[in-house]
Amino acid sequence: MPLIEVKLYEKRVTPETRGQLIERLTDAAAEVLGDEVREHTWVVLHPVPETHWGIAGKPGGD
Amino acid sequence: MPLIEVKLYEKRVTPETRGQLIERLTDAAAEVLGDEVREHTWVVLHPVPETHWGIAGKPGGD
Amino acid sequence: MPLIEVKLYEKRVTPETRGQLIERLTDAAAEVLGDEVREHTWVVLHPVPETHWGIAGKPGGD
Amino acid sequence: MPLIEVKLYEKRVTPETRGQLIERLTDAAAEVLGDEVREHTWVVLHPVPETHWGIAGKPGGD
Amino acid sequence: MPLIEVKLYEKRVTPETRGQLIERLTDAAAEVLGDEVREHTWVVLHPVPETHWGIAGKPGGD
Amino acid sequence: MPLIEVKLYEKRVTPETRGQLIERLTDAAAEVLGDEVREHTWVVLHPVPETHWGIAGKPGGD
Repeated sequence: MPLIEVKLYEKRVTPETRGQLIERLTDAAAEVLGDEVREHTWVVLHPVPETHWGIAGKPGGD
Repeated sequence: MPLIEVKLYEKRVTPETRGQLIERLTDAAAEVLGDEVREHTWVVLHPVPETHWGIAGKPGGD
Repeated sequence: MPLIEVKLYEKRVTPETRGQLIERLTDAAAEVLGDEVREHTWVVLHPVPETHWGIAGKPGGD
Repeated sequence: MPLIEVKLYEKRVTPETRGQLIERLTDAAAEVLGDEVREHTWVVLHPVPETHWGIAGKPGGD
Repeated sequence: MPLIEVKLYEKRVTPETRGQLIERLTDAAAEVLGDEVREHTWVVLHPVPETHWGIAGKPGGD
Repeated sequence: MPLIEVKLYEKRVTPETRGQLIERLTDAAAEVLGDEVREHTWVVLHPVPETHWGIAGKPGGD
């Protein structure tokens, strides 16, 4: 605890951004909740194709 | 807001059904909650292989 | 299958909208995927306080 | 109901473990909640690459 | 890893069933994936009112 | 996009930590993915009672 899950466009997930997101989101949680949570923080990334993500009724990437 | 997430068999997700699901689910939310939510409605589709979806202890597609 | 989960502001969830959302979202899925899915469609509503939902870094309801 | 969702490293998901997880997790729910839930229990497996799963700020598999 | 999340009717979640579900679902995962996962298995229970869970277009508990 | 969901112990969610988590997690995403995502970043907090969160087969708070 805590469990941080991130859904984002798959084009945004690269070897660089993966590691940085995991690190910075963990840092953010530890800053707010106390450093004792750091060891127990899970971050799970879920890439989603733009075509599978609709905003205001329209799929992205079309 | 609102956020609508749909998990469904991967075989059901085609270029046609993707767009239609995003549109119709957004329409349904706007009809019930008021059209002002339309712009802020997200629909995220999560295709799942039948083999990864168990019902009554049995995986699909086996 | 399918599984439709909806997160929305708790103030939007009333005895009326609950039933309507469940019905209309199920209709929308059945229209697109075929009426044979209707019996097997789950809709789960998750009300969220505005204060627990941040957009662009700001929580709602503050 | 109930709905059991499992996120796990994709390397752990094989044709054998898929079926066993679905069966054993359904058994566990039925043992605790009563066998009448068995028919209505869904288990959905979500394999995740280790590189997309961070623990204590570090992604797995790096 | 693994992360097991369970959504179930609120009335099914009691001090007894909570502990039993957490224990048995963890056992099931460890039996299938190997006992080394036991220490790292999370089970999170999400009780849902029947009125917020629709099946085949009808909410429960009405 | 992106959508950041956080599950954490209920006791960790206070009027202070809510706002800070939403702000810092949004900052972290914007730093990594580019500031253009800030406006479109959602952070949704899900407090969970310790008794509903099992680690290694044991529920918290017992």
